[in-house]
Amino acid sequence: MSGGILVASNRGPVGFVEEGGKLVPQRGSGGLVTALTDVVNEAGGTWIAAAMSDEDRRRIEGAPGGRIEVVLDDAKYRLRLLAFEEETYERYYNTVSNRLLWFLHHYLWDVPRWPRFGTPSRVSWEAYRSVNLAFADALAEEAGEETTALVQDYHLSLVPAALRARAPETRVAYFHHCPFAGPGYMRLVPTWLREEMLDGLLGADLIGFQSARWAEDFLFSARMLSDAEIDLDRRTVAWKGRETKVGVYPITVDPEPLREHAASDVVAAKRRDLEAWRGDRKLLLRVDRAELSKNILRGFLAFEDLLQRHPEWRERVVFLAHLTPSRTDLPEYRTYTQQCMDVATRINDEQSTRSWTPIRVDASDDLDQVLAAYGLYDVLLVNPVFDGMNLVAKEGPLLNDGEGVLVLSRNAGAIEVLDRWALPVDPVDIAGTADALHAALEMPQEERRERARGLRRTVEARSPADWIGEQLRDLTG
Amino acid sequence: MSGGILVASNRGPVGFVEEGGKLVPQRGSGGLVTALTDVVNEAGGTWIAAAMSDEDRRRIEGAPGGRIEVVLDDAKYRLRLLAFEEETYERYYNTVSNRLLWFLHHYLWDVPRWPRFGTPSRVSWEAYRSVNLAFADALAEEAGEETTALVQDYHLSLVPAALRARAPETRVAYFHHCPFAGPGYMRLVPTWLREEMLDGLLGADLIGFQSARWAEDFLFSARMLSDAEIDLDRRTVAWKGRETKVGVYPITVDPEPLREHAASDVVAAKRRDLEAWRGDRKLLLRVDRAELSKNILRGFLAFEDLLQRHPEWRERVVFLAHLTPSRTDLPEYRTYTQQCMDVATRINDEQSTRSWTPIRVDASDDLDQVLAAYGLYDVLLVNPVFDGMNLVAKEGPLLNDGEGVLVLSRNAGAIEVLDRWALPVDPVDIAGTADALHAALEMPQEERRERARGLRRTVEARSPADWIGEQLRDLTG
Repeated sequence: MSGGILVASNRGPVGFVEEGGKLVPQRGSGGLVTALTDVVNEAGGTWIAAAMSDEDRRRIEGAPGGRIEVVLDDAKYRLRLLAFEEETYERYYNTVSNRLLWFLHHYLWDVPRWPRFGTPSRVSWEAYRSVNLAFADALAEEAGEETTALVQDYHLSLVPAALRARAPETRVAYFHHCPFAGPGYMRLVPTWLREEMLDGLLGADLIGFQSARWAEDFLFSARMLSDAEIDLDRRTVAWKGRETKVGVYPITVDPEPLREHAASDVVAAKRRDLEAWRGDRKLLLRVDRAELSKNILRGFLAFEDLLQRHPEWRERVVFLAHLTPSRTDLPEYRTYTQQCMDVATRINDEQSTRSWTPIRVDASDDLDQVLAAYGLYDVLLVNPVFDGMNLVAKEGPLLNDGEGVLVLSRNAGAIEVLDRWALPVDPVDIAGTADALHAALEMPQEERRERARGLRRTVEARSPADWIGEQLRDLTG
Repeated sequence: MSGGILVASNRGPVGFVEEGGKLVPQRGSGGLVTALTDVVNEAGGTWIAAAMSDEDRRRIEGAPGGRIEVVLDDAKYRLRLLAFEEETYERYYNTVSNRLLWFLHHYLWDVPRWPRFGTPSRVSWEAYRSVNLAFADALAEEAGEETTALVQDYHLSLVPAALRARAPETRVAYFHHCPFAGPGYMRLVPTWLREEMLDGLLGADLIGFQSARWAEDFLFSARMLSDAEIDLDRRTVAWKGRETKVGVYPITVDPEPLREHAASDVVAAKRRDLEAWRGDRKLLLRVDRAELSKNILRGFLAFEDLLQRHPEWRERVVFLAHLTPSRTDLPEYRTYTQQCMDVATRINDEQSTRSWTPIRVDASDDLDQVLAAYGLYDVLLVNPVFDGMNLVAKEGPLLNDGEGVLVLSRNAGAIEVLDRWALPVDPVDIAGTADALHAALEMPQEERRERARGLRRTVEARSPADWIGEQLRDLTG
């Protein structure tokens, strides 16, 4: 294969489910999958991912190296699904990726108590390393001359350097989808782990981030490697005789499929239900995974602060919180979700009247209803403590037709392009968030219209193809 | 006053207590007080501090501006004690300084839940600002031509800029005694607060830190001011048309008074008691305030890990944990201290034998006993999650006469000068800490002696006078 493109990610573009005794492929959602699929297909390349389910594992039984081809919705996918032992995958995925690295990059630890590295943590890190090396092995096997490998996200931090060791001619771009821990917090992981992770990443020719702030935090943290030379202005790291470029490539959504879906009958029906429930009140909306970094708790408290300091909004606004269940096998997530529910219940108990319940929590995974709600909101609250990008902040304004206002956290990557049109808030600032909600609810129609148009145009100006195209350009340039 | 020196700190060098109906001055301990007192006295300057107690406030009744002179142990102190309303002081000291800024700079928040900025936080910040401005007013009143003001620590972050506005000719050095939050974590405080704080600090001509890592983290965080220009190599910040230098000035202890105290009869008696208790077993020691940043919990867990993985140490080592009560009016501290006690109790319950209880927690404030224990330890564990400097790591080796080994956190400022002679550990790495404890207990005498000598000489090579002298040199140079 010459000039081919390989993609490596924990989750592949296609997974399998059993329907009527047959294994049927299902496509993952999102513009990222489309963009990556397009470039892989154009180059006749392969996508390497972990087998996620029993169905995935059954599908690759007998396929050498897990290589399969799938045709789905007019697209052809050349896949290599890597099967791991359950315990190894659990350690790599839940213990290290979701608990250690996600918490690290989102500043989620209760530091006086967590994290704790004991002997089991060492075993888990070995599992993480072994999965990463298996990805690097598979990539090296697929790589020919002038191959480009696009390695996705913190699950695969060690892949770039391992791939370089195995196939030195391969061009490697790594993209980090979430924030990157700054140099202070980065001191919370053991030195050996931090150095292995940074060294792993710096095997890439290009490291991409969602926003300039995460790129900077990475560059600062890379300075912790005593022999690395960092150029903050050129955004380069010199390490082990090579130079790694660091770039900023904000991910975005693909407007057309989203709008098509939103125009469907099932979404229209959901919308009528929501309209009936909302009545003539204003609709405040949030849409999130029930995730520690999403700041759901402070969002409810800010709404309570609004109702207390501006009682004129009582009975005139309802807050719909769409919280998709997430990582429910981790105790931290169950505890946090329950706490969010308890606070919502308390606020409802204290504030409700005969005709008005201020907060409605919807914990279903109902994309149709989410799209319906996007169309209707007056105010969309997106207040994560930290968030690589946050696509809700882009999807909402794209589909909203009521000149809704976006209240957006200064710690979401999306702020970098949307700050002019959104109302920015500091996520821990409950009073400040309440002030922004009040300003959004009160905003004159003309200003709302102008801001909504600005948001929409900004989102429309960029496509998922730009995201990948810019990386390929910088990789060869 | 020409060429005079002013010091401003929350706590002054002298406080008052009532004895037999009279208000009697008592001197604060530590080499820092001595060093600053010496330079203030030499220059005929004044030390400005908050009145900390009713006795302090009674002592300055009728004294214009709170100005008093005190002679104590052959030293003369010119003081200005500033009295604040109780509620204002409580907000400035506990709510903002100890809870907000201390937690920020030590990464202590359980981020999904804390901090929360509500309307009360705004009121507290106003109190913090008003106390800082009162300090700046007092400094400006005392300042003459060519005055140098030495502003101490995070309680007074806003003083440098406020003083510059009031007395532009005054040279201002600010010293930050604790770590400084890096740029990622720094995004957890509201923008308005962060910018006011950074702007306040950058009013200084010179900002000093305990170690190069905190200086770097400050420089990184200062980059968050969009108009600031940072030079990482020269360690300067250009801001509002001026340049602020950033320097590293590690604080140290004054060996002589410490050794004199350690040679006293009362310490000798304490030592005999400790020797009788220890018997022929090895002594593992820690000495800390019961403080969230000191990592007491993981220290106990590391000791447990040692006993589990190296059962040969059972009955052969005892762990004396000296935990001085600290900030007991903050619920976070009470909860954490109780948790530490519970873990120690659990480990003792599980591990004790008829003749051996592995952990002894001493929660008294008994300096004599601490000095006695310094003399005796075989291993001193200093494992803070984050610590500006940590003087236990310097005092212990200075007074130890058993060739004791220092196990020292890589996140204590002290590591920067002691890393060659200590056994460095990553503070969250419980297994790694247990390994280091094992290595320390097993270390051959020759290596222990060499390391102990290296520690002692390194500590003796620097004096508190160096600390202040270098700042004054860099301020004028």
